[in-house]
Amino acid sequence: MDDQTIGLILAISSSLFIGSSFIIKKKGLKKAGARGVSAGSGGHSYLTEPMWWAGMFTMIFGEVANFAAYAFAPAVLVTPLGALSIIVSAILAHRMLNEKLSVFGWLGCCLCIVGSTVIVLHAPEERPITSVHEVWELAKQPGFMLYASGVVFFSLALAVYVAPIHGNTQILVFVGICSLVGSLSVMSVKTLGIALKLTFDGDNQLLYPETGYCVLVVVASVITQMNYLNKALDVFNTAIVSPIYYVLFTCATIVASGILFKDFQNQKWAEVLSEVCGFITILAGVFLLHATKDDCSSSSNFPKRTPRGMELP
Amino acid sequence: MDDQTIGLILAISSSLFIGSSFIIKKKGLKKAGARGVSAGSGGHSYLTEPMWWAGMFTMIFGEVANFAAYAFAPAVLVTPLGALSIIVSAILAHRMLNEKLSVFGWLGCCLCIVGSTVIVLHAPEERPITSVHEVWELAKQPGFMLYASGVVFFSLALAVYVAPIHGNTQILVFVGICSLVGSLSVMSVKTLGIALKLTFDGDNQLLYPETGYCVLVVVASVITQMNYLNKALDVFNTAIVSPIYYVLFTCATIVASGILFKDFQNQKWAEVLSEVCGFITILAGVFLLHATKDDCSSSSNFPKRTPRGMELP
Repeated sequence: MDDQTIGLILAISSSLFIGSSFIIKKKGLKKAGARGVSAGSGGHSYLTEPMWWAGMFTMIFGEVANFAAYAFAPAVLVTPLGALSIIVSAILAHRMLNEKLSVFGWLGCCLCIVGSTVIVLHAPEERPITSVHEVWELAKQPGFMLYASGVVFFSLALAVYVAPIHGNTQILVFVGICSLVGSLSVMSVKTLGIALKLTFDGDNQLLYPETGYCVLVVVASVITQMNYLNKALDVFNTAIVSPIYYVLFTCATIVASGILFKDFQNQKWAEVLSEVCGFITILAGVFLLHATKDDCSSSSNFPKRTPRGMELP
Repeated sequence: MDDQTIGLILAISSSLFIGSSFIIKKKGLKKAGARGVSAGSGGHSYLTEPMWWAGMFTMIFGEVANFAAYAFAPAVLVTPLGALSIIVSAILAHRMLNEKLSVFGWLGCCLCIVGSTVIVLHAPEERPITSVHEVWELAKQPGFMLYASGVVFFSLALAVYVAPIHGNTQILVFVGICSLVGSLSVMSVKTLGIALKLTFDGDNQLLYPETGYCVLVVVASVITQMNYLNKALDVFNTAIVSPIYYVLFTCATIVASGILFKDFQNQKWAEVLSEVCGFITILAGVFLLHATKDDCSSSSNFPKRTPRGMELP
């Protein structure tokens, strides 16, 4: 089996795990709520509910699979497939939680699958990387330096100057910060994934200082991203945050990966255009699913969480 | 410019003409209605209205372009692009007739364009045909003979046995007949188009008896198709007939063309799957446009017509 296929299988199973984890956790929350104070009202009885922990571990398992997927396949393939977890969770909610999907909801699911298929069919091959040092050299090229410093500068400007004034009224402020920083998270997480993969293959990458720098970038960017995502979810409705975050986060990641790993260098324009079409189809599906579903029917009584389908690696 | 590109340009301009013809005709009907009895109430004053005639000629021009498109590009490319006329007419109605599109309507338009792009990017190349006799030989192969006799048998059974009992309650009866027969119309119209193209190129095909048989098939199948389409539109709502007819007609045509001209023989499975995805995306768009638009806002006061976007060649 080639790396691309392994990455694809990991990405799809990651979406299956993450999508179902929300339903398992919600079932756990309901069970816990039946026994004591519900989580929405500030109770913590779900912490003694095995079902909730089962959901939590399913989610962690899914995140690990997602992390591993980035080591095998390009981000251009893995990130958009995150949308599949949305439909897994919507279909499971329909069957198991009696949160009925409308005909538009089903259409949205269908579009997510169709768009994902188009992306999978035309995604670029993963560039063969043989060391963390190689990624570091790629990152030092002017294109990516410009992108990365642009992201840092723009995010800082948003966080320091714009957020205090407009953060609570303009959804794009918080979501923009976590999408931009998120693209750096994915790049560094992917590099770390490649480092681990190479190490497991017998080529120890953990001795190099670049791996250490990479860990620092992962920690800093993931914490920043989670922090602003929680702020966004705090102020705005999940049903609005989710699709906007999915769009911005996926776009930023595709741009970052395209610059850093030169994903599109050897692609024909017809393939790149097909990927764009596949991505737009997924967006339409995500929009339909969210626009035609009232927020309370999703697992919104679960405290602070990453919106479904756009989990961090 | 190669034949495929000429066919594509003809197919797209055909959709532009047909799509705008509905708006021009409707403007004409409104003008005529302001002067006398409206068409919906049985008046015929629109026949003296130049604007209505302008719309009529735009439509005929579009149909001729559609006919010509079939001579240059495979039906697998030309037929699905008929959906573009739906969005042309929806967008023009939004701008010129003040029939506002909802956000779902815009999403539907967007999906039609995205799906069409995917189909255009992956459509098979037109098989080079050098004579009508060659098409005749292709049609005599067992696969197509089986398909054509199946269509005739099944349509006759539907028309003679099923239609009298279920025709007015089951929409699939009338629409099924005209979709099946419609696939034969397209095949014969395409053959006639190729014959005319070859004749204009100096290789006279009009002397061969096969061209004559072909004209007979065109006349018989187009009359049958129009007859049952009118029956369907008579009994059922245009907003329901249109998308179902588009789906069935396009599917039947793709199957017929795939068997007769062996469109998919030299295609990779990834390309065929991309085309299927593009087609599903268009279907979703057509469904969204129709499901979120009340019928009276379309040009439904216009007497008997082919539904928008699925005009006969």
